[in-house]
Amino acid sequence: MSAGGFFRLDRPLSLAEAAEIGGARLAAPVAEEGVVIIGVAALDRAHAGDLSFYDRPRYAAGLRLCRATACLLRARDLPALPPGVAALIASDPHAAMARIMAALFPEALRPQSLFASSGVSPGAVVHPSARLEPGVIVDPGAVIGPRAEIGAGSVIGPQAVIGPDVRIGRGCSIGAGASLLCALIGDRVIIHPGARLGQDGFGFVLSRQGHVKSPQIGRVIVQDDVEIGANTTIDRGATRDTIIGEGTKIDNLVQIGHNVVIGRGCVIVAQSGLAGSCEIGDFVALGGQSAIGGHLTIGEGARIAAKSGVTRDAPSMARLSGVPARPVRRHLRGELLLDRLARRDGEPPC
Amino acid sequence: MSAGGFFRLDRPLSLAEAAEIGGARLAAPVAEEGVVIIGVAALDRAHAGDLSFYDRPRYAAGLRLCRATACLLRARDLPALPPGVAALIASDPHAAMARIMAALFPEALRPQSLFASSGVSPGAVVHPSARLEPGVIVDPGAVIGPRAEIGAGSVIGPQAVIGPDVRIGRGCSIGAGASLLCALIGDRVIIHPGARLGQDGFGFVLSRQGHVKSPQIGRVIVQDDVEIGANTTIDRGATRDTIIGEGTKIDNLVQIGHNVVIGRGCVIVAQSGLAGSCEIGDFVALGGQSAIGGHLTIGEGARIAAKSGVTRDAPSMARLSGVPARPVRRHLRGELLLDRLARRDGEPPC
Amino acid sequence: MSAGGFFRLDRPLSLAEAAEIGGARLAAPVAEEGVVIIGVAALDRAHAGDLSFYDRPRYAAGLRLCRATACLLRARDLPALPPGVAALIASDPHAAMARIMAALFPEALRPQSLFASSGVSPGAVVHPSARLEPGVIVDPGAVIGPRAEIGAGSVIGPQAVIGPDVRIGRGCSIGAGASLLCALIGDRVIIHPGARLGQDGFGFVLSRQGHVKSPQIGRVIVQDDVEIGANTTIDRGATRDTIIGEGTKIDNLVQIGHNVVIGRGCVIVAQSGLAGSCEIGDFVALGGQSAIGGHLTIGEGARIAAKSGVTRDAPSMARLSGVPARPVRRHLRGELLLDRLARRDGEPPC
Repeated sequence: MSAGGFFRLDRPLSLAEAAEIGGARLAAPVAEEGVVIIGVAALDRAHAGDLSFYDRPRYAAGLRLCRATACLLRARDLPALPPGVAALIASDPHAAMARIMAALFPEALRPQSLFASSGVSPGAVVHPSARLEPGVIVDPGAVIGPRAEIGAGSVIGPQAVIGPDVRIGRGCSIGAGASLLCALIGDRVIIHPGARLGQDGFGFVLSRQGHVKSPQIGRVIVQDDVEIGANTTIDRGATRDTIIGEGTKIDNLVQIGHNVVIGRGCVIVAQSGLAGSCEIGDFVALGGQSAIGGHLTIGEGARIAAKSGVTRDAPSMARLSGVPARPVRRHLRGELLLDRLARRDGEPPC
Repeated sequence: MSAGGFFRLDRPLSLAEAAEIGGARLAAPVAEEGVVIIGVAALDRAHAGDLSFYDRPRYAAGLRLCRATACLLRARDLPALPPGVAALIASDPHAAMARIMAALFPEALRPQSLFASSGVSPGAVVHPSARLEPGVIVDPGAVIGPRAEIGAGSVIGPQAVIGPDVRIGRGCSIGAGASLLCALIGDRVIIHPGARLGQDGFGFVLSRQGHVKSPQIGRVIVQDDVEIGANTTIDRGATRDTIIGEGTKIDNLVQIGHNVVIGRGCVIVAQSGLAGSCEIGDFVALGGQSAIGGHLTIGEGARIAAKSGVTRDAPSMARLSGVPARPVRRHLRGELLLDRLARRDGEPPC
Repeated sequence: MSAGGFFRLDRPLSLAEAAEIGGARLAAPVAEEGVVIIGVAALDRAHAGDLSFYDRPRYAAGLRLCRATACLLRARDLPALPPGVAALIASDPHAAMARIMAALFPEALRPQSLFASSGVSPGAVVHPSARLEPGVIVDPGAVIGPRAEIGAGSVIGPQAVIGPDVRIGRGCSIGAGASLLCALIGDRVIIHPGARLGQDGFGFVLSRQGHVKSPQIGRVIVQDDVEIGANTTIDRGATRDTIIGEGTKIDNLVQIGHNVVIGRGCVIVAQSGLAGSCEIGDFVALGGQSAIGGHLTIGEGARIAAKSGVTRDAPSMARLSGVPARPVRRHLRGELLLDRLARRDGEPPC
């Protein structure tokens, strides 16, 4: 496996097993007995024993050179596969790959102890009034405050800080150096290193005589199966709660202001910013470096393009881009129009 | 109190006390003796004992359903308040709420020890040459380097790192996992978790033979009453100092380059970036995800809209937006114009 | 030295020595014997014993008031230098200053132990199976995991976390609170505080039934002489590696997605975002808050302006700006055109 070394193979999979797990089918019976998958790799890095996948024309050159044992791809791409590579036909090769990888490398589905710890490491500091269910792992350097509660099977990484009264559910992973204050965390939540939850929201009464700090006494509620990226910041509510809905996935370096309410199953790409008190419906997708203004409502299923700035409410299923954000097609028509006007003779279009 | 649990009520307030503290007035005498405020909540979450506030039409539905004991609002909004909720009339309900909350929950005005510590916790590491005034609290896991000095009443959170020779004034709060190098910090400064002060600025002499690192020997000076958000980064100066002026409030994930000088009372919203050597006058406001180019001067009282990119000096009281930034009204006229040209028959305006 | 106190002067330099080190020449013989440089400062802050430099008209006022012992500047600027300040003529005053500062303050070239530590500090936690070459310094609070390897002369800052099997070369500096997982780090690499390397990439198979996590089993490879800014995040690869090429310099708060490959000698300014699987050629420069879309290729030597959003492949030496990014001149022509249309009578151009 070219890219590896950090994750241990759980067990080899035969091609038939891999196909079944991935919801794929073998394009042809495999002649050789005992052909097994023992790793995964990108098309251009794979060799014997590896499984690879192909799902976009950009990587067609890699496909033609592929030396993997097997490759997941769509039926229409089969002719380009080199002989000697077993074809696993799937309607969504990437999804099939994810499922098979989960079987090969189950440890990679959830961050593990970084210190091969079991139980509370000697170097961790756990307040005597904190309550840890059986099977909680606490890595060296972690600090767990008074009355905090942590559910069975959760792993608290090195240098993570769990504040007073914080509750963490079962099967969670809290990354190295993350800090959780004033927070209630559901089950199976993954919080990556350096994420900051529950610090004061940015609330001030502005005045030339000095800005007056507005106390922030709400909480951060993180529902089940949420994932929160590295160095992302989520402020606690002012007089209500900041809420991250079930199954929502948040990338790195995202800013979520106080009182924000995010629905279920949202996808929020890196470096986005959600200003205070905005409400995001279920299954909304926010592109990288996008921004949602304060007190706005984004309807269910809306998609906001990367780098957009939303300045008014968006209806369900809206497709917006630009600053200020407008319907994607119209925004792009406008940019093309402007570019045509600015183009000089002989210049190619943008 | 719906949103709470993490902050302890200092003492209940009677309506008359709350009105006085908030600079508000009771719209009508309260019939019942002994009506007290014991919590705060958003309009739609409040119940008996809670104080709420109303200051923008977006939340009119919440106002009509409000079941709080009392509500701060403007006189003109009084007719919409449900009977049974005591009205506290204020010209700025949010400001009044902030003052009353400060009286109800004084602990929330400044981050406290996360470990109920007093003095230096056993798990902290303080260099023998560091000097701590009486009453300094150091949480477990904090590291305080040689010759560092920390003033009375300051709280150093878990995993915070205070570098050699750093000086921190009195009444400061340094958040979990923050790091302060080459920095002089005034009094009553709040630094939230994960903020990074005083690392090298991004200074290189570029060359195809390898970029040569330009030593950065300046400092970070943070004046009194500054607040710095979670995971914000402030580089130290190269040959001069990076300075954050008195009372300036900086949100999360902001980048402040080397040699930047920020005046007093500024407000810098999340994910903004200030390139090296720019100078920001007093009481400037920068919107979220805005950017100021290197070596630029932004005049006193200027306001830069979210997502703008400033590429030239801005005069005092300027109101700018766009990339490159221009006067706000002109920028919006341009965007509307472009959108009108791009709009097809029957499409609504953006 | 006005800006100092945190860095110790290695030894004074005579003017002749300074000139030689900086590749500059003295404009006139120095009358007084024993004139030495013992510090550096900005033009308007310098006094006797300081070296300063002048390289842009914005600071002409400072030059006229300069009271340094000596000043690096271009020959053409000589007439504006006050009498009494020795002139050191250099074609690139900033580059000369960097070289001389490196001689005056060699400690500032690379972050040092923050605890005056030698060897492994008592407060650090090093797994017994980790291997540290002689001369490695580990500050208090650092955690080094199973089988990690660290080369001679490297300094691991307080609270830094080095995950299992991570390898770090020689002469590296790992900043306070940084975390390195699934990573192989070359020699002389500088990683600033709070940087996050090697956490899971943002990979999900999206579905209304719940987004399925796609295991990320690749690594982060950081080649020699790379510098990575504070709180920057670099995800590990999914089925291949994330690679940062030799001598590339990355600023603070940058996001680098899984599978990204960055060439040699690139300069990536603060708050930029590189989406998954993009490939950046050698010597590319990305301005602050710029973004590169997923799976794109940016050719060698390209320069992308601050705040741009690149949505298609860019050829070598391209000069792009805007969202979507286009050739810089055309983008600016378009913006000027739009601004002219939006301008009202009497308004000055933007």
